[in-house]
Amino acid sequence: MMKMDKRTDYCGNITSKYLGQDVLLYGWVQRVRNLGQLIFIDLRDREGIVQVVVNHDSGKELMDAAASLGQEYVIEVKGQVNERASKNPDMKTGDVEVIASEIDVLNKAKTPPFEIKDDLVASEQTRLKYRYLDLRRPTLQNALILRAKIMTATNAYLSGEGFINIETPDLGKSTPEGARDYLVPSRVYPGSFYALPQSPQIFKQLLMGAGFDKYYQIARCFRDEDLRGDRQPEFTQIDLETSFMDEQGVQDVTEGLLAKVMKDVKGIDLKLPLPRITWQESMDKYGCDKPDVRYEMLIHDLGAIFANSGFKVFSSALANGGFVRGIAVKGGAKFYSRKKIDAMQDYIKRYHAKGLAWTKYEDGEFSGPVARFLSEDEKQGLIKEFGLEGGELLLFIADQWKVCCDSLNYLRRHTAKETGIIPKDTYKYLWVVDWPLFEYDEGDQRWIAAHHPFTMPDDKGIELLETDPHKAHARSYDIVLNGYELGGGSIRIHKREIQEKMFKALGFTKERAYEQFGFLMDALDMGFPPHAGLAIGLDRFAMLLAGKDNIRDVIAFPKNASASEPMMHAPSPVADQQLRELGIEVAEDAKEGVEKYEASLEKEAAEDVKSHEE
Amino acid sequence: MMKMDKRTDYCGNITSKYLGQDVLLYGWVQRVRNLGQLIFIDLRDREGIVQVVVNHDSGKELMDAAASLGQEYVIEVKGQVNERASKNPDMKTGDVEVIASEIDVLNKAKTPPFEIKDDLVASEQTRLKYRYLDLRRPTLQNALILRAKIMTATNAYLSGEGFINIETPDLGKSTPEGARDYLVPSRVYPGSFYALPQSPQIFKQLLMGAGFDKYYQIARCFRDEDLRGDRQPEFTQIDLETSFMDEQGVQDVTEGLLAKVMKDVKGIDLKLPLPRITWQESMDKYGCDKPDVRYEMLIHDLGAIFANSGFKVFSSALANGGFVRGIAVKGGAKFYSRKKIDAMQDYIKRYHAKGLAWTKYEDGEFSGPVARFLSEDEKQGLIKEFGLEGGELLLFIADQWKVCCDSLNYLRRHTAKETGIIPKDTYKYLWVVDWPLFEYDEGDQRWIAAHHPFTMPDDKGIELLETDPHKAHARSYDIVLNGYELGGGSIRIHKREIQEKMFKALGFTKERAYEQFGFLMDALDMGFPPHAGLAIGLDRFAMLLAGKDNIRDVIAFPKNASASEPMMHAPSPVADQQLRELGIEVAEDAKEGVEKYEASLEKEAAEDVKSHEE
Repeated sequence: MMKMDKRTDYCGNITSKYLGQDVLLYGWVQRVRNLGQLIFIDLRDREGIVQVVVNHDSGKELMDAAASLGQEYVIEVKGQVNERASKNPDMKTGDVEVIASEIDVLNKAKTPPFEIKDDLVASEQTRLKYRYLDLRRPTLQNALILRAKIMTATNAYLSGEGFINIETPDLGKSTPEGARDYLVPSRVYPGSFYALPQSPQIFKQLLMGAGFDKYYQIARCFRDEDLRGDRQPEFTQIDLETSFMDEQGVQDVTEGLLAKVMKDVKGIDLKLPLPRITWQESMDKYGCDKPDVRYEMLIHDLGAIFANSGFKVFSSALANGGFVRGIAVKGGAKFYSRKKIDAMQDYIKRYHAKGLAWTKYEDGEFSGPVARFLSEDEKQGLIKEFGLEGGELLLFIADQWKVCCDSLNYLRRHTAKETGIIPKDTYKYLWVVDWPLFEYDEGDQRWIAAHHPFTMPDDKGIELLETDPHKAHARSYDIVLNGYELGGGSIRIHKREIQEKMFKALGFTKERAYEQFGFLMDALDMGFPPHAGLAIGLDRFAMLLAGKDNIRDVIAFPKNASASEPMMHAPSPVADQQLRELGIEVAEDAKEGVEKYEASLEKEAAEDVKSHEE
Repeated sequence: MMKMDKRTDYCGNITSKYLGQDVLLYGWVQRVRNLGQLIFIDLRDREGIVQVVVNHDSGKELMDAAASLGQEYVIEVKGQVNERASKNPDMKTGDVEVIASEIDVLNKAKTPPFEIKDDLVASEQTRLKYRYLDLRRPTLQNALILRAKIMTATNAYLSGEGFINIETPDLGKSTPEGARDYLVPSRVYPGSFYALPQSPQIFKQLLMGAGFDKYYQIARCFRDEDLRGDRQPEFTQIDLETSFMDEQGVQDVTEGLLAKVMKDVKGIDLKLPLPRITWQESMDKYGCDKPDVRYEMLIHDLGAIFANSGFKVFSSALANGGFVRGIAVKGGAKFYSRKKIDAMQDYIKRYHAKGLAWTKYEDGEFSGPVARFLSEDEKQGLIKEFGLEGGELLLFIADQWKVCCDSLNYLRRHTAKETGIIPKDTYKYLWVVDWPLFEYDEGDQRWIAAHHPFTMPDDKGIELLETDPHKAHARSYDIVLNGYELGGGSIRIHKREIQEKMFKALGFTKERAYEQFGFLMDALDMGFPPHAGLAIGLDRFAMLLAGKDNIRDVIAFPKNASASEPMMHAPSPVADQQLRELGIEVAEDAKEGVEKYEASLEKEAAEDVKSHEE
């Protein structure tokens, strides 16, 4: 039987410390260069590449073996580590090479559909269909290894802080609040369904009611939503909950965790405590609730400067209770042509902005369409307000508050990116606190919980619940990294009477509240401690630390944009017998689609069989 | 807003090291003893109980506050740690008491439906409905804390050994092989379904194909099977896979992991390497493939002794190719009355045993029904074979091999338990190796893979695949703890031609093999490394180390025996709109049941509302 001896080390770790030693290596053939008298093999494993050399001294048999190796063959190599004649300083193993004395092919490889290298050009569909090959690329390997390091640091830190890792069920109950659930038909109760959890929120609160005091879990969550670039049907969160802690306590624990992760994963010492900003200030200064504070370019309110403006766009906005706000883009005067500015103007129409006013400030002069409306006082006001030094492009939005926020948030991020002022390899964390309790859902045309229905209002908010709930503020907090919402949490409601008021404010009847959350309200009556918690999106965290643009690059087997997985073909039709047992049927209008899909899968399999017989 | 100051320590940690100090504690009121001049409060948290004292010196206000406390109230206590007059050596905190200077009620509690104590008498249904109260019991808290410690030790050990924690999808593809899948309807492809994974088997093999070299995951798995005492619809396994390792390599890693867990969780130094036994020897000596080796009582083959037996039951069994095998139960002669032996005789009929022959050996004499058939040679043979010392009950099964195994396995375990020879707090691990590749499924009346279809046959087995597959042996191994299968693994097939033969031996057509596993066979063609792995059942592991009889006691929110969860009511009926979006309908014959269930839930909610208004 094939016996696997213990390798000396990974290929990527064979450095000069092994000089002169006999080594045993396993790996994949990245490349073979046959120079006739000499054959070089680049041998790859997860840690890197080492150069293996076969020469005529090794005998014909070994030369033939080496010459017959193909790309991606899996081989075992025995040999001796020698100093290289021409060292390669770009490689960790570049000082040495392995003079092979034995090469065994453990498995051959057909020509892969794409080459295993970082600067890969292949469609996403092909990459997902051959994901096991895509994942051989060092950039993806490193991204997943980084993700694992985050998990290792998290497990070590939280268990060290007395948090108990407790698993909560994946087969739970469907609650129509919030996003769409994935359902799981029950066989024991045909026609009834479990739901996969959107988060372990209720379970972790119940664990506090059960007295576990500190809970954490790296938890899988599911949402059947339409996918965007950074969304997947299943995702993972670092989930924690504590009893007898307030905002400060949860934030301290979280900061400790983030510091541990930054140190272990990136070697960076995170300066604590992290800065805090209120939601209101964040909206006013950055136009959004997840500001990117790696660069300044704050939004300024120009109402005072333009109080008597002769420019009708400004004066009528202010007269109608609106705002005039703007940003100054450093270097923007040169960088931005009229065409580029027009493109931004078009873009911000999606935020209902009526227009984009702008001026450039160069050599002590204002130019551009707005310039001629500016009085000398206004000019001096702008110079002082923005601290103008020359070369700036000033962008103004005169509109309702929300339109100003959304538009200037876009303009700030867009111009920062285009003008290249965002520092590389910089990680700026920030707490956003003091959130509204409710937000208006434009799609559903109703008020919904901004965080979730279990969030504690602040003291004034508790009073407002019965009179003017939508003005209430919440005891919630988000942690933001480089302009992304990394996670969020809140103090939870631990008293039944407040929870009942909350459901009422959300438009629940008592009956509906009890049908869905009766167990929780009963639990709150049985000695429930004050508690609070937080969840961090692991996929996004890994994506940001790995420097990727898409969370698919930090997930081993992601779904594509239509929530399917082209390698195994999930989802796919199932046998009628399976559905019969569950008491469900495919609806009439879905049958045709299913049959077509089934036929295409059968055809593909038949073609595969044929191609392997050729 | 309620500010939560940092507690001094958990209640259960307030020992004499805090003598004289002012402390701040949070916890639940376990008990109040009001002696008029003096009130004692037992304050509980997850770490234990401390005694809080209020006396007349504290003033009337505090006395009143203390007197009004109810069971399970959540309170904050400030006070000073004093030496107790009458120490309680049974409590960790028994040397001290806290003289309260301030008591604040953070939340009240209604009278719970059952008292929070370890020797609880409540139905399982009630315990699950009020799981948050059930989980306050120290025995369950400790069991879940122990489970978390296993996870912490596992994460630390495996990441330290270079294993990469990689998450695999929960939304996968249904494969009819093996147990029944839980299905998840797709909204994007109405009428198609994902399946929840029964294990990450295929994904972890693909990760080896992707070159990750060492993978692990604490993975949630799902099986829609009928439940038994130690089964749950969802369960968790410690799952690992390695490349370029054979049996020895995987077993070494596993032993290292087990040693780490035993040390961290139980404080026990596990002696390595663990013993190994072949499957054949295990069946012959223990009658099963997961032997409990905490005690001896081996099964002996008595064919040689009874070769010329005058007892027809024995002689005809041997003549028909069967066996005569038996065990000697120490002290069994006195312990076992005829009635008790008859009960065992009845029980083993389920293993198709025709009968149970027995004899007692006391004071140098054999007695009981078989005794009169025993020749002097046979008597001497038995004395020598079993090393009889007197007082033994000998139990014999004369039957086909499988019947002997099953019956004697039962008799061995049953008598060991009844006679009390199983040592407490002892953990005996054992490898069972060299398994058959296939086993016959009596239910389905066909040969199935004993482990799974990706298990590598041994060298002879590869040859046998085409001629006599059911005689083939597998390169697989199980790890057994105290008579339970703790986990198992194998060398996997890494060559396409062997995998194809395997599917053929399992009765797959080529088309079906490609439709289901085409991606894997393609992958094996693209440079797949030799690989092997193992999975350990975490629920069972935690159950055994926590000394529990049921895995429900090591799961925070388990399902009951009909796979439902009575607290939240999962599964339950869902809105028609949800099903319409998924392209499925409740089948006609299931509708009545769903409507009844729906009505009962509504009724319950209405009653809840009413009861809370009273």
